[in-house]
This record gives sequence, C-alpha cells and structure tokens, in this order.
Amino acid sequence: MVVKIGTAVVTREDGCGLALGRLASIVEQVSQLHNRGKEVLMVTSGAVAFGKVRLSRAVRLSMSMRETLSYREASAQVNTKKSSFGTSAAVGQSGLMALYDAMFSQFGVDIAQVLVTKPDFYHPESRHWLRQTLLELLSLNILPIINTNDAVSSPTTIFEGPSDGSLIQAITDNDSLAAHLAVEIDADLFIAMTNVDGLYTLPPGQEGSKLLHSFSPGLEDQVVFGEKSSVGLGGMKSKISAASWAFERGVSAVICNALREGAILRIINGMKVGTFFTNHETTIEPLETLALNAKEGSGILESLTGSQRGAILRVLADLLVKKSAAILAANCEDIKEAAAAKLDASLLSRLSLTDAKLEGLACGIRSIALRCEKEDVLRQVKRRTLIADGLELQQITVPIGVLLVIFESRPDCLPQVASLAIATGNGLLLKGGKEAHRSNRALYGLVQEALATHNAERAVSLVSSREDVDEILSMRKHIDLIIPRGSSELVRTIQEKAQGIPVLGHSEGICHVYVDKEADLEMAYKIVRDAKCDYPAACNAMETLLLHKDLMKTEFFNKMCSILKNEGVVVNAGPRLHEQLTFGPPEARSLKMEYSRLECAIEVVDDVHQAVSHVNAYGSGHTDVIVTENGETAETFLRSVRSACVFHNASSRFADGYRFGLGAEVGISTARIHASGPVGLEGLLITKWQIRGRGDAVADFNNGERKYLHETLPANPAEDEHSK
Amino acid sequence: MVVKIGTAVVTREDGCGLALGRLASIVEQVSQLHNRGKEVLMVTSGAVAFGKVRLSRAVRLSMSMRETLSYREASAQVNTKKSSFGTSAAVGQSGLMALYDAMFSQFGVDIAQVLVTKPDFYHPESRHWLRQTLLELLSLNILPIINTNDAVSSPTTIFEGPSDGSLIQAITDNDSLAAHLAVEIDADLFIAMTNVDGLYTLPPGQEGSKLLHSFSPGLEDQVVFGEKSSVGLGGMKSKISAASWAFERGVSAVICNALREGAILRIINGMKVGTFFTNHETTIEPLETLALNAKEGSGILESLTGSQRGAILRVLADLLVKKSAAILAANCEDIKEAAAAKLDASLLSRLSLTDAKLEGLACGIRSIALRCEKEDVLRQVKRRTLIADGLELQQITVPIGVLLVIFESRPDCLPQVASLAIATGNGLLLKGGKEAHRSNRALYGLVQEALATHNAERAVSLVSSREDVDEILSMRKHIDLIIPRGSSELVRTIQEKAQGIPVLGHSEGICHVYVDKEADLEMAYKIVRDAKCDYPAACNAMETLLLHKDLMKTEFFNKMCSILKNEGVVVNAGPRLHEQLTFGPPEARSLKMEYSRLECAIEVVDDVHQAVSHVNAYGSGHTDVIVTENGETAETFLRSVRSACVFHNASSRFADGYRFGLGAEVGISTARIHASGPVGLEGLLITKWQIRGRGDAVADFNNGERKYLHETLPANPAEDEHSK
Repeated sequence: MVVKIGTAVVTREDGCGLALGRLASIVEQVSQLHNRGKEVLMVTSGAVAFGKVRLSRAVRLSMSMRETLSYREASAQVNTKKSSFGTSAAVGQSGLMALYDAMFSQFGVDIAQVLVTKPDFYHPESRHWLRQTLLELLSLNILPIINTNDAVSSPTTIFEGPSDGSLIQAITDNDSLAAHLAVEIDADLFIAMTNVDGLYTLPPGQEGSKLLHSFSPGLEDQVVFGEKSSVGLGGMKSKISAASWAFERGVSAVICNALREGAILRIINGMKVGTFFTNHETTIEPLETLALNAKEGSGILESLTGSQRGAILRVLADLLVKKSAAILAANCEDIKEAAAAKLDASLLSRLSLTDAKLEGLACGIRSIALRCEKEDVLRQVKRRTLIADGLELQQITVPIGVLLVIFESRPDCLPQVASLAIATGNGLLLKGGKEAHRSNRALYGLVQEALATHNAERAVSLVSSREDVDEILSMRKHIDLIIPRGSSELVRTIQEKAQGIPVLGHSEGICHVYVDKEADLEMAYKIVRDAKCDYPAACNAMETLLLHKDLMKTEFFNKMCSILKNEGVVVNAGPRLHEQLTFGPPEARSLKMEYSRLECAIEVVDDVHQAVSHVNAYGSGHTDVIVTENGETAETFLRSVRSACVFHNASSRFADGYRFGLGAEVGISTARIHASGPVGLEGLLITKWQIRGRGDAVADFNNGERKYLHETLPANPAEDEHSK
Repeated sequence: MVVKIGTAVVTREDGCGLALGRLASIVEQVSQLHNRGKEVLMVTSGAVAFGKVRLSRAVRLSMSMRETLSYREASAQVNTKKSSFGTSAAVGQSGLMALYDAMFSQFGVDIAQVLVTKPDFYHPESRHWLRQTLLELLSLNILPIINTNDAVSSPTTIFEGPSDGSLIQAITDNDSLAAHLAVEIDADLFIAMTNVDGLYTLPPGQEGSKLLHSFSPGLEDQVVFGEKSSVGLGGMKSKISAASWAFERGVSAVICNALREGAILRIINGMKVGTFFTNHETTIEPLETLALNAKEGSGILESLTGSQRGAILRVLADLLVKKSAAILAANCEDIKEAAAAKLDASLLSRLSLTDAKLEGLACGIRSIALRCEKEDVLRQVKRRTLIADGLELQQITVPIGVLLVIFESRPDCLPQVASLAIATGNGLLLKGGKEAHRSNRALYGLVQEALATHNAERAVSLVSSREDVDEILSMRKHIDLIIPRGSSELVRTIQEKAQGIPVLGHSEGICHVYVDKEADLEMAYKIVRDAKCDYPAACNAMETLLLHKDLMKTEFFNKMCSILKNEGVVVNAGPRLHEQLTFGPPEARSLKMEYSRLECAIEVVDDVHQAVSHVNAYGSGHTDVIVTENGETAETFLRSVRSACVFHNASSRFADGYRFGLGAEVGISTARIHASGPVGLEGLLITKWQIRGRGDAVADFNNGERKYLHETLPANPAEDEHSK
C-alpha cells in the first residue's frame, strides 16, 4: 500500500514557528505509518518561510550585537520583504530538511530529499527517472520528502505543455505537485492537509455552513462555489482541483485539517475525517441533518397533547408484541454473530431479547403512556407568582431539546429511551452498539412506525453504528444532553470527549451494604445476598460489604462468608479485616473496585459514622444501604451518605427506574446537578419562565410608582379563588 | 534576568520519540523567552536515548534490505541492550543537537552546544573558563544548551572532591549539573522539569495525596519522604536535592511538569505551576484545603435546621447595615484604585457600593431567611411512592455540594451568592475580581462573622484574587458546580476550561422584543424603551427589536426610532430592513450581537412564526418578549420560543431573581439542563432517593412472591390517611 501525503500548510509563511508542534505531530503520525510497513511519501512546503527566518538572522549576525538587540524587530520586518522568493527558498531548504531529518530520526525513520520542477513531469524521460527514484526509495524503506525546487524555477515560469496527454493539469503549487506524484506512483490515498476541516457549503463559520463529509468532483459549481462561498474557500480551490484530478485517475483523496490531532492516523483507520472524494451523490453531512431533524421533530412532539404522545407510545407497545417474531429473528442473527465472534457471556446475555422481555417493555411503555394521558408532563406549571398587580409569572416544564443516547449491547434500551423521549417531547439521536445493529434496526423501525401516526418520525433517529462518536460529539451546538449507557469505560470516554455538552450518567456503581451491630442478622443475610447475587453485572449490585466491628465477635462473619461462598462469590478483605484475620480472604487490591461479577470486598468499621465516611470516600455516589433495627442509626446513614440513592433495610438492587415506579429510565445519574438516581420523565424536562403582563416596565418599579407583591399563587389557576 | 532551565525528562529512554511534540513545545517557550530578551540556558539529557535509536538504525543499514524489513523489531530490541552508554551518547549527541538546532532555527534562535564533565566544576580554572564561556554566549544572544559529556566520562566515575568549599554537592546527574550552573551564573530562576506536577505529600494519584505548591528545604523528612511516599518519588529525590541546593544559594527554584502546556511561560508570568521552593512554612495546597473545608462546612450547614440557617442569614443582613461604614470605606479604596487605573465607566458603576445597595442586599437576604424559617428547603419531600407493602421510596432535596462562583467587579454578588449557598447548605468557593478585592474582603468578613454563630465558617471561602483560575479548575473532584458571573468572555473561558465540571450560566444575553401588528403601540414604546434603556449593560436588556412588516406602513417605525434616538440609542438595521429603506440606519454587522450599551438592531419579520424562527436562530436562549393584544399570537410565541424566559407584554428586564420573587439569584442560566433562567434556591438543590424497607430483596419480586404497587403517596406523610 502506498500512501501519499501532501502537507502543504504545515509550515505556513505567517506563522512557521508556531506550527512546529503541529509539524512534530505530523512527523510522528507519518513515522508510525512508515514503521507499520506502509509506504509513505510526503510533499511539503515551508522552505521559503524557513528561509526568511534564516535570512533575517543572517542580517542580524552581520550587525553589531548592540544593534541586533535594539533593532531586532525592525530588521525582521524589513527582511521578510527584502529577500526574494528564490533566495529564501535556497536558504530555507537545508534548514527545513535538517529539521525533518532530526525529527524523523527520533522515530528511526530515514528520509531522502527530492526537489522537483515542473519540467521533470513534462518530459517523459525525466518523469520515468523520477518515478524510478521514488519507487526505489520506498522499496529501500526510505521516506521521500518532496518539494518544488523554487531556487531554480519560479512558481509562475511557463514551460511548454506536457507531451503526454494524461497530464493535462499544470503543476502550479504543492497541491497539484502532490496530486501528480500520487498518480505517478499509483498511490492508494492522497491526503491534502489544510487549516480547515474540509469542504463547506458556505464559508466555514458562517451561519448555516455545513462540512461536506463526501464530495463528488464535477459538482463544484452546484454545491461549493456558490457566490457566497467563494470567500471562505480561498486556497481551497487548488486543493479541490488537485484532489479531484487525482481521484479521477483512481487515487482516493481526502482534504483534511492538519490542526486536528491525529488526523492522518484516523483517516487510515477509516474514520470520518475531512472531506472524502467519492463518485456518490454529494450529500450534506448526514449526521447533522439527523440532528436538525431531531430538533424539528421535537417541536412537532412538543406541539402534541399528552394524550397524543401517549397514543404514539401505545402504538409502539402494541407493535413490540405484534411484531415480536421479526424482532427476535433479527436479534437471533445478532446473537449468532456475537457468539461466533466469541463475545463475553455477560454481553451475550444482555444482547439477547425474549418474548418475555418484549412483553415487559410493552408493559413499561404503556405505563408511560398512561402517565402522559392522565396528565401531560409538558407545560406543567411548577410555580406561579403574582409579581405585581396584573403581572403573573409561571414556571412551566419544557423538553430539554435533543438528546444523544449512546448504548452498548442491550437493544431493549432503544424502545425504553425512545418512549421516554417521545413522552417528554425531546428529539433523540440513538447510537447503539455494532453487536446489536440488526436488533436495533428492527426496534427502530417500530419506533418510526409509531411516530408516523402523528407525523413525528424525524424526532428519533438511529445513528449508523459506523459513525464515529467523535464526529457526533463535534456537533456540539445541536446536542443538549448526552446519556451514555454501558461500561464504565464508555461513560468515562464520553465524559472526557463531551467538552461542553452535559453528560448524564454514572461511570461506576460502587455500592455498599453496611451491616450495623443492631442489624436483624437474618435480614442482613437476605439483603446482602440479593444485593450481590441477584444480578452481579448490574451497576446497583453490592461491591463492598461493611461490617460493624462488634459483629466480628459473633458467628455472623463466618455465616455471611459461607452464604456468599455458596453463591460462588469470591471475597476480598479490606486492609483492616485482613489485619484481624490469621487465615482470611486475600487483601483487596483497592476499595474503589467495581467487580461487576460474583466477587466483593468486605471491610470492618467502628460504627455508622465510619461507615458513612468510608462510603463517601470510596463509593461512587450511586446506591448505598444500611441494615439496622435502630431507627436513629438508620437516619444518620440516610442523611449523611452523599449518594443518589440511600436505602434502609432494602437491597441496593431497587435502584432502578422501573422498580421506583418511574415506568422506565434513561439511565442512573450520579451527577451532582440536574437529576440524580434513576432518570425517568422528570429528568428529561427543564423549565421555562413565562410572564403575562399588561405593558409592564421595570422603570415603574425603580421609581417607586409600583411595588413588587411576589405573592405565591397555587400552581393550578382554578384554585386562585380558594387561596384568597 | 537570567533564567536557567533543566529539561531532564524531555527525551526519556522509554519513549524518546513520543516526546517530540512536547520537546517542540519546550523549544517554543524557551525561544519566546529568549526573543523577549531573557537570558536562558538549557540543560538537557536525551543524547543516550537518541543514540540508541541511531545505533539500531546503523545496524539495520548494515543488514540486507530483506533482513531489515523482517527483522526490524528483533534488531531494535537487541541493540538497545547491546550498545554501551558512552557509545550511545556519542552517537546521539550530534543527532540531538541537530534536532535542537533545526527546531530553534524555526524561531530564529541561535544555539551553542556545551558539553561538560564533573572535573570542569571541581577545578577553579576550568570552572572560571566555563563560566566565562556561558556568560559570553548569553551576551552574544546565543542560547547555550548544556549536556554532560557522557562519551568521555562515565556518570559514576569518581573524581577528587571540589577544591572550592562552596561546591559541596557532587554532580551526579543533569539535575545537579543544572543546579550548579544556575548558581555559577547567578541565575534568577532554576526550573527543573519532570513528568509529575511537582512534590506530593504521598505518591501522586494515591488517595489523599496532595500537591505541594510551595516547599521549604529541610522539611524533606517530615512531609515528603514519609515511608509511604518514597515509592512515588523515584527520580524526584535528585530534583528536590538539586532545587534545594540551588535555592539555598539564592536561586529561585521550581519543580514542574514538562507535560503541562506552557508550563515555563506560566511560571515566568507568575502563575502557580509546580512546586516553588520557599523559606516559608511548607503548607499543603491551600486551595485544596479551602475546597475540603467547603465540603466539610456544607455538611455542618446541612445538619442545621432551616431556622438555624435563617438565623445565620439574619445576622449577615444586620451586619451589612451595621457595618456599612467599613464596607463603604473599603469599597471607596477599590474605586479610587480602579479610577486611577482608568477602568471602564460601566465597570466602575458596577464596582460601586452605596448605603442604598447594602440596604437592598440586607432586604433580599432577609427574604431568603424568611423562606428558610417558614419551610426548610432541604430535606423537602418531592415525591413519595409505596413501592410495595412496607417499602417506601422518598425523593428529598439535598445540597449540590461545593459551588465555585467566579465573579467580576460587582462586590454585591458576594453576600447574595453566599446567602443562597448558606440557605441551601452548599459549600462555596468565591473568586472575586482583583478590582474589588478590598470590598470583597470586607463583605467576606461579615459572612464569616455570621457563619461563626453556628460554627460553619468553613462552608464559605474567599479564594485569593491572585489564584489562577486554571489552578482552581484543576481541583475537579472537589467542585460540583461552577457559576461564572461576568462578561461573556469570562463565561466562555470558564466553559472551555471546566472540562467535566458542570457550568451554570449564560455567556450572552441576546434578548429580543417582537412588536406584533396587533400590538398596543403605546405599550410597545414603553416596553422597548424599558428593555433597552433601563440598564443597557444588563444581560436582560434588549439587543434586537423585531417589527411585524405591517408596522412599516405606519408611523410606528419613525416614532419608535425617534424615541430610541432621544434616549441616545444607536440603531443598526437588519438586512431586510436595510433593503427596504433608502435612507435608514447602517446595516448591522451581525444579528447575533450583544451590544451591552445604548445600541441595538432592528429587523422586519413577516409574522409571529418568522419572529420565533429569528429568535431561536439568533438569540441566546435568555429572555425574549412579544408585544401584542392577540392572545393566540402571544401563546404561539410563549410556547415556541426556546428561551429560559419568554414574556408577553412585559419588559425583558423582569428576568431577574429578585424581580421573580426568588429573593436573589446566583446567576441566570441558559443551560438546557438543571436550572434555566434566574437561579435561586431551587437551582442549588438536587434530590436524593431514600428507601425505608423491612428487609426487602428484588429476588422476591422476580420470582413472583411479591408484587410492585407503585402507589403515589402525598408528599406530606400526615396526609396519608386522607388519600386512602
């Protein structure tokens, strides 16, 4: 495989020094490709800019030191103008190559310098010679770095046309040079790097401008070079024509941003970076369209009544049961493939759908529908205040906007999350895991069918599993909230990448059960067993068991351990427990451990206060439990543990939207703002303030003409009379 | 000024290639210092690592090409072991210098290579010679790069001791070499770079480990070299001893992380980066202590009753009035200094406190106190559900945790925000602007006095105005919510830097007033004047006036414009209005403009739907107003505009916590989650779920033994009987 990389903007004239870090990154990426066995060729500019810096130094050195220090700036300015293009190039070339040589040396990559002029391409003999040289260098595992020989030939010199008909385009710059070389050596890929992300429909940054992820040569006039766009595409035209020219001769071409971290490697890894040249119809960024649709669709949902949204949900619930055969068939295909790929057993179990699961889903969705029909969750008045006579303030519930839910494995998430979004009038982008793509597609079809009954199909979109999460997250302005559902890694990755978009969820579920000295021991056995063993992979399963120190003097510890052992639970000892026992369980590696399987840690604490401190220090703010018969001790724990869910004498496994009676959940949040614990309908709503006045101005209050009343009114206007 | 920089870790043996980008960043920073006229000297290692890469290439080149390609990995592995230290250094030295030369060339910086061995320091003559060489290079504006001459002298070779008593420490590595050079040339600063942020109390990353921002030599045993910490400080010991040694000889010393962006320049600019060596008592990171105190203090506040928290607020309100003279005196000093520094007039007006303002503050705080006394906002039951017989779920309000409020200029923010935090049991870190530091200090004193009545002083801390915001934001795990109050730039900067900590606020207030064709025109004049002119610098002031197209046929437009003109408002025309008028106002540069002064844009729209589209496209989701007598049109606007506040026939200036009757506000949020609009008490609370059970396990429900009831109970348990 031959990869051709043109780095025409790496060392720009206006800030050649500032691009050093970026150049280092490109060198690193190219070296990685080279060292993986890819054949890479690099076309670079920058010699002229480099030369200008050198020239200004040379002038400085010819001045006395005192002059240098005071006239430094002045001389630098003068010199950039004075020195000729060719001189600058000649002076800069050696410095640039030294820089490349030194940088590539760091990665053990050998480079060779090749300077070319246009006639080298026009004469068949020199072309052949050049081609042989390049191929030989590549076969010798040496990376050729190519530049135009500006010292001997002006960029605007006109030579006689090419004698070979295949080379119809003139070489006018490094972009066309790179394109020619790519074709000449039959490269597989031509990457043209610039300082914008790719081709846009309008100048980048302008309202409504969209990045084209693919571009079909020949459509320049229609899509890109509209009157408005020409401004933003300065310098881009030559890249487009070079990339088009190479593409038409069988070389894949991409225009991408050199300033984006790891752009080259991401392109090679098949991710959506920059603008790809294709023969397919040019389409505006499909992802962005989905997001805009979701926003529009949410408006449609919002305009419906609660009963109408409930009706959509009832259709969906019925479809889940009616079309269960088709869903299960699709699911079966997914499971087969996953099994063949030897996916983890717990992943397989979460991937699998059954008739019972679908029935359960339908049941949950119907309860959400009922809720909508009884009382619309939207436009609910949360607060009413009479600011002054005739000036009324209302705080009402409204949807958040567009939600992005990223989930792994469990396809049953899809209808659940979609139902909650539909009920609350939110737009929804769903990104499911590749392993469940057939199941997701089938379930999504039903959601669409249900939405179609009220022309709201656009509100929910299933994002193709091939889409890069980074790409989705780059649409910051279109997404209001991200809810990742899956492994801790997934959640943490999303949290790191979201940069500005709020993320609701929890990365870990390190749940504790504390058994107090005054606990009903039989109850403790039952709760611990349920909390650990009912579904050990769940985030609300117990990971650490805390025991009051007095219990260590009783038979409780041994019995508890043997119960856990019978269930197959591997036990690890906290440092204090480990110290107390001569022959006990091995010491836990960490007390901040989410085992997610039949394994847990046990630690000893002095009392409820130490238990609280332990939970607040090592827990993840998810769900924690106290088992005790002492009401006061229980209240201390319930009050002082800073977790989203805190339970007394009940299993941590109850921390779940369905079990809480919320109908379903989009996830469990351990965030310290917005929603905590299982997030149902309420978590997908925010409020908006409305004032209905009669021409009221603040100035009237400032000057004392009017007075603020701030009278709290009943939320339901019908009750106004009673309140007076 | 002489700056000495030791970059001992830049090119580490384990990943010399990967550090290239970081090296480029260091070169760039050092070049900037150099080009600003600072005298910089750089001590670097890496030649050995560099040489190993070169040697393995040399071996590869001596093999046939085929062998090279297949045996590449194997040969690389063999060679790193085979080649001797001295050989690697000799081979690497030239490559390393070529790399530095090439990189520094990019910034027009000339470098010189100086290789030294220990004896160079031990013999007075050679020491003198070396010193002269270095000083001469610096005076010639050449940057010396120094390395140990490992090719001629083994690092472990023992020479006879120094003949000069001042040099008591042996040179054992690049750190001690750099320290010696720093002392030798009377440097002002010695920066030792490593790959951790500085000195920690325990191994970095370990639970409870804290970065020391300052360190006093001689306290090594006490603070840093505890038994537990030795593991994490491998390699750090030599840096500490080198830095201590230089510091004791009058050179300022810092140990910092080479991996942190811009570390060198930030140190030079006086920011808190790494560990500074001082003679003051070593203290654990004061900022982190404040954050931990805030968390602890919030616990104390949370444990108080509503009446007790109300009592604290009443004390504060009384103090504001009683001690007004002292506050105003401090404020007067701030204003004098600001006036002398020629600060902006609008900034000065916001900086200034008056007796009336203090009275108003006290009044607002008393209303918050009243609210707390009437009904505690904490532990309010928002929802009660009977999950099953004997299993009750409650959702109750709890504080968010630790808030960081960053505010500029307006010192009246401080008591307002503190009151809201105290009322809601939240810990608070306040970072005020430098321009108001005396006023803030005085007001903070009163907050402390009030908190002291209930031993809760720790809950609120005023962060010194010298603290770097970056430094504060690095304490991610201790801060639950950031509320920036100030210019759009401040808010945007914080939003960008927060990375993971939620930010509540609004960066812009682009508020619209839409005057419908069915508007009461007198009312329109009044509302527009109030919205634009009452306080043009406020975020809830009108920026764009939208007019229904039919109004353009009437006298309304001219009269509206003359009213605005009389108030001194500069008018800009939107594109459509501009097209309609032959002699009209100049065209607005953008319709997304927050003028924040007596200036606005006017645009024409077809109807309420186009007005809604305009507001949703160009607005900032803050506050938007419709003026119309048609109720249906008004409801369309109220419903469809996606802003936090939407008003009918009332000025946008009502969007304010006090005017809404919330008592005060911590800010106005345009976020699409948590709280929107003015954020009062409710916005500083989240909820927690509590279950009180009798030994309930999920398994009992799974196996059908028990059934979920999910019966909604009245929030007030006293009403349970009535509901049945």
